[in-house]
Amino acid sequence: MAEKNRLQQWRDRISSELDKVMGFWTQYSEDKEYGGFFTCLSRDGAVYDDLKYIWLQGRQVWMYCRLYRKVPRFHREELLNSAVAGGEFLIAHARPSSDSLKCAFVVTRDGRAVKVQRTIFSECFYIMAMDELWRTTHEEKYKREARGMMDQIVHWVRVDASGLGRPELPGAEPVNAMAVPMMLLNLVDQLCEDDEEAARKYGELGAWSVEKILQHLQRNGQAVLENVTEDGKELPGCTGRHQNPGHAIEAGWFLLRRAFSNMDCNLGKIAVEKFVLLPFESGWDKEYGGLFSFQDVDGHCPTQLEWSMKLWWPHTEALIAFLLGYMETKDPRLLNNFQKVYDYTFTRFSDPEHGEWFGYLTQEGKVALSIKGGPFKGCFHVPRCLYMCEEILTKLIEEEEG
Amino acid sequence: MAEKNRLQQWRDRISSELDKVMGFWTQYSEDKEYGGFFTCLSRDGAVYDDLKYIWLQGRQVWMYCRLYRKVPRFHREELLNSAVAGGEFLIAHARPSSDSLKCAFVVTRDGRAVKVQRTIFSECFYIMAMDELWRTTHEEKYKREARGMMDQIVHWVRVDASGLGRPELPGAEPVNAMAVPMMLLNLVDQLCEDDEEAARKYGELGAWSVEKILQHLQRNGQAVLENVTEDGKELPGCTGRHQNPGHAIEAGWFLLRRAFSNMDCNLGKIAVEKFVLLPFESGWDKEYGGLFSFQDVDGHCPTQLEWSMKLWWPHTEALIAFLLGYMETKDPRLLNNFQKVYDYTFTRFSDPEHGEWFGYLTQEGKVALSIKGGPFKGCFHVPRCLYMCEEILTKLIEEEEG
Repeated sequence: MAEKNRLQQWRDRISSELDKVMGFWTQYSEDKEYGGFFTCLSRDGAVYDDLKYIWLQGRQVWMYCRLYRKVPRFHREELLNSAVAGGEFLIAHARPSSDSLKCAFVVTRDGRAVKVQRTIFSECFYIMAMDELWRTTHEEKYKREARGMMDQIVHWVRVDASGLGRPELPGAEPVNAMAVPMMLLNLVDQLCEDDEEAARKYGELGAWSVEKILQHLQRNGQAVLENVTEDGKELPGCTGRHQNPGHAIEAGWFLLRRAFSNMDCNLGKIAVEKFVLLPFESGWDKEYGGLFSFQDVDGHCPTQLEWSMKLWWPHTEALIAFLLGYMETKDPRLLNNFQKVYDYTFTRFSDPEHGEWFGYLTQEGKVALSIKGGPFKGCFHVPRCLYMCEEILTKLIEEEEG
Repeated sequence: MAEKNRLQQWRDRISSELDKVMGFWTQYSEDKEYGGFFTCLSRDGAVYDDLKYIWLQGRQVWMYCRLYRKVPRFHREELLNSAVAGGEFLIAHARPSSDSLKCAFVVTRDGRAVKVQRTIFSECFYIMAMDELWRTTHEEKYKREARGMMDQIVHWVRVDASGLGRPELPGAEPVNAMAVPMMLLNLVDQLCEDDEEAARKYGELGAWSVEKILQHLQRNGQAVLENVTEDGKELPGCTGRHQNPGHAIEAGWFLLRRAFSNMDCNLGKIAVEKFVLLPFESGWDKEYGGLFSFQDVDGHCPTQLEWSMKLWWPHTEALIAFLLGYMETKDPRLLNNFQKVYDYTFTRFSDPEHGEWFGYLTQEGKVALSIKGGPFKGCFHVPRCLYMCEEILTKLIEEEEG
């Protein structure tokens, strides 16, 4: 009974936070003139730059559609209209020109390409947006966009990367960077929802992605490293020793979802123990609380200036991972860790005055950047976390009620 | 007399600091096997990564030669030998392949290219190294290397940038980024030392660089902005509002040297008032001391995570700028500001235990990264500052002695 109260308190707070967060984005970020979203928003929602970052455009379309489709109180016409306008902006402008295979990283307000990254991530968020738009509107063109781009990125990752435009250099050994199989696994999860045909088509890619993620568990299972060789060996130097606790924990919940859908208990156990609990233990700042951004597995000082800063997204991913892990295992360690992250997060990141969360705190937990959105923070990690936690907590409360 | 004491105290401390700093680099950074330098050094000098960053290789060769050539107590055979080994490493390995026009950004310990930037900066530090090696050894091959690469970068900057490999994108307006004319002005200064022929050859380039730097003075002379249009207008958004106080101050002393050598009083005045005092006033943290890394001219929060961190190099550049400005103007504001930066710097950055300086402090002045060297910090800004300040203080003391 006490436990049920705790779950209910969390859910109530999280539900009202989700409403406030989405209220912030719908009020301040929509570009009614060109479609798509402003994401460079000050603490109070003012637009301080009108550039459009394609990762964030795709993510916001995804988030709007997902909430519209899954959460009855968000099944609102205006949310769908904004998502469609964002999707149409992407179709018209994400590619720098009509013959480009790649998407831009950032475009002007009216959609002219400013910068293209030599990676697959803009394309990945394009796919998430298109697939979710298709599921929401049932318009086939969105499915075609999603599937076509998916074929393209799988080609770049598994067949021939030359189309990404990276030069081949004699000292640049090919690297298995965990972000790549993570994104692919996340996309397989997205594309295969209630879709037998997709599950067949992408089944092997899902298994390959899991294998590539598991290669990052190194040092006799005692550390998750962000970069390993293509055949799963440790790399020399800073690149090889680099750790990103929040990213490992995010990979943990991606693996957990895979384990559930495949009923793979062993994978579920590895996900919880090695990708969630282990990086949380090493990555949590015992002095000031919060998750470090980066660490060096041998204890050297990382060279990234922000290594000790506390960023919003590792904390949202930890909240999801602990709750998802608890739902399956009922391991009390996971709920206690959820509590710890929840307390830190709602005290430090959430802005009671203007809504949404601060994104960047100092090691000591002071707000370092007052922006609510920027080149890398948009309408995604916070509402995705709140939506998923609300859903999981609702299930847990129902279970308690038996 | 009191003033002379102050100058002497500064000089004595600065001279002994220069000895300690150079002792750190000569003891820990030299790669006796392959030539060149390790720059990824922990607080105590331990090598935590053996990658070689070309900016830092070139800068260290320059620094060794300059001290060997100009400061009698550094006229030591082993310093010259290390510089030559570093120079030969650069000639053999800075270019990714024998037919490359560009230099790499970073290479492996044995010289295989890992990454190439689509900018001119690796090439600029290559030129500095080669020109200074020529002046030190009088070997013509170094001069040929310097001059050949100089022709190349001038071609990229002023005739045709396509060789840098940047894609042309419809939303990417050409930008006058202050770093480019600054580097060129600095190179003109380097190449023209006691060289009439070079002075004729590069005279117009020097004037052009000054003009391009002065375009960054915006808002009716009330702000130096890092990025402007090619014809000197303010750019929209964060890019346009971006300020880097340390960089503006460094540009200030580059302009001051130009003003001295051309006996251009008006330029000297602009350099001191607008590029040194103005950015110092706006960039100095009134609460905790130290220079902010980045600012937004309209007071928005910058999107760079380290905007409020205190980095070593803006402080070294401020020390040089104030002393150089004082030498010419005898304006007491400049000496008072020198004192302010000196006190902050020697208290916070200098490491009494292991030598050299910390590079990265939090806004509050706590050491955020304990490394002494890394991908962007090597044997350059600290010893260049100490060497220049020692030289200027010596002149000032001689003047006092009259």
